[in-house]
Amino acid sequence: MPLPFDSRTVFFTLEVLGTFAFALSGLFAARAHRLDAVGTFIAAFLAAFGGGTLRDVLLYQRPFYWVANTSLLWGVLVMALLASLLLRISSRWLSGGVFLVVDAIGLGVFSATGTQIAQQQGWPMLPCVLMGVITATFGGLLRDMVCNEKPILITDPSPYASIAFVGNWLLLALLHLQWLDAFWATASTAALITLARVVLAWWGVKLPQLDDGGGEAEKTS
Amino acid sequence: MPLPFDSRTVFFTLEVLGTFAFALSGLFAARAHRLDAVGTFIAAFLAAFGGGTLRDVLLYQRPFYWVANTSLLWGVLVMALLASLLLRISSRWLSGGVFLVVDAIGLGVFSATGTQIAQQQGWPMLPCVLMGVITATFGGLLRDMVCNEKPILITDPSPYASIAFVGNWLLLALLHLQWLDAFWATASTAALITLARVVLAWWGVKLPQLDDGGGEAEKTS
Amino acid sequence: MPLPFDSRTVFFTLEVLGTFAFALSGLFAARAHRLDAVGTFIAAFLAAFGGGTLRDVLLYQRPFYWVANTSLLWGVLVMALLASLLLRISSRWLSGGVFLVVDAIGLGVFSATGTQIAQQQGWPMLPCVLMGVITATFGGLLRDMVCNEKPILITDPSPYASIAFVGNWLLLALLHLQWLDAFWATASTAALITLARVVLAWWGVKLPQLDDGGGEAEKTS
Repeated sequence: MPLPFDSRTVFFTLEVLGTFAFALSGLFAARAHRLDAVGTFIAAFLAAFGGGTLRDVLLYQRPFYWVANTSLLWGVLVMALLASLLLRISSRWLSGGVFLVVDAIGLGVFSATGTQIAQQQGWPMLPCVLMGVITATFGGLLRDMVCNEKPILITDPSPYASIAFVGNWLLLALLHLQWLDAFWATASTAALITLARVVLAWWGVKLPQLDDGGGEAEKTS
Repeated sequence: MPLPFDSRTVFFTLEVLGTFAFALSGLFAARAHRLDAVGTFIAAFLAAFGGGTLRDVLLYQRPFYWVANTSLLWGVLVMALLASLLLRISSRWLSGGVFLVVDAIGLGVFSATGTQIAQQQGWPMLPCVLMGVITATFGGLLRDMVCNEKPILITDPSPYASIAFVGNWLLLALLHLQWLDAFWATASTAALITLARVVLAWWGVKLPQLDDGGGEAEKTS
Repeated sequence: MPLPFDSRTVFFTLEVLGTFAFALSGLFAARAHRLDAVGTFIAAFLAAFGGGTLRDVLLYQRPFYWVANTSLLWGVLVMALLASLLLRISSRWLSGGVFLVVDAIGLGVFSATGTQIAQQQGWPMLPCVLMGVITATFGGLLRDMVCNEKPILITDPSPYASIAFVGNWLLLALLHLQWLDAFWATASTAALITLARVVLAWWGVKLPQLDDGGGEAEKTS
């Protein structure tokens, strides 16, 4: 099924949104850890480009999307620079709610595009789904690992990667059924994942944690 | 020297064993850190596929072994799912001894196959040996790093990577001498590394730790 | 502009210096964390080869520089072996000043060569500059992450990556102006970065840290 417009351009537009959302999560982490200008850049760049770069390495996509179009790099650079100034003035302006929404956009966009690109390369279904999850979550993982923190990904019981996992299967079904062309299937899945993330986090839905029975007792004591 | 059977199939069989062994180590880590279902998947997948994927990236082997045959991914997925259920019921069923043996199988298989594949690509000896060690240990390293723990690899004085290092040199010697064909040389080295790991850990052999003389005193105070 | 000698050989010579400097930083980290022989190897190898290997993966340079010429690997292996012996005897022989200088050499060499190689491949300017910074800093990042420590890169307010960032832009300007051929431009930039690092660290110059106003108070309390 042919696309009505150049798919590279479209995915790039989606990636801009996702990248800035993840870069913002890096700025939040930098503020929480009181990093200097360089640390802020590193946290923002790892969060913004970590997942997409790993995707391009694993799928052997060259040139990297941030080499083919450097405006993304410049954008995150400017964000990190402005952050260094802005965060010093405005203290707790960007609340947890804003963070949740922008991060959910990144989750939706990168998991859907990661899955779609792998599918386009003829990968089998499960690797496609996992590639989407990896693309969406690896940047945040690196961001937290570099801050020497247990990653939010594995500590926060609020559903995140699990939503991407389910959503990516839905995307594969949509691509298979061909009701929508590849772009609209990917875009609507991205929107759905974003929505599901925000709503489930808002409702306070939590995944069950593993424990051996005496877990709660040990935690409270 | 021609192989009596398709080498890809044979190595895949060995990799299945090693992968499940490492995935199990991820489940143990997930339980120790009280991770939720998603965290359990991540720990299991990183431990199981981290080393082999890095090997395939460095040696530029495509498709990845988990793309060419997705049954490995499905297997680890099911393991992680069952773990979430099983570990809640049976508390301390899988003892340290079981963990030691399965992990030793993974160590043996991945270090021998990693070395053999690099040797097949015409890499020089030391890089081949190190590639084997990396393949066998990188997954565990990632598993511990994502749990924000000092990796067992560098904290445990019990010999682990060092056994793989020595074993891989032996494998290169075997491949050079051509007493056995490539498969049997690799398989027997894998078995030997596994055996050596279990026996040395059982005997409590420890590598000497670096200190400046006053190490013990500082630790106890 | 043709080089008067084989550029591969020249860059390899520079890389030898940088690699041993970074390996030494790995040995220091190993001593600080009281690692055993294997841990010492891992810290030294990650610090020495982490950045250059990531550069070769991202720029798809094969064979890896440590496969094309294994003497680097052997050198670091011997360093780690001697370290295990030496560090036990001589307690605090290698002072912070020595560490600063050797590490600055590594910073200068790897950021300049990383930038130059990316530029040679026709990458745009900002990715070239960032590739240099990544090549120079990723090894140290991995070294600290594997030791489960907040990386020096993001905690130390003394300028490090920022010097490489500025220096790499200078290198691109030099390469563009063509006053010097590629080798001398790269070598002089490497020297300049090294010098700037040592001098600025000596003077105690610090980058401003992000805080929300009440930062100092919270720290002292």
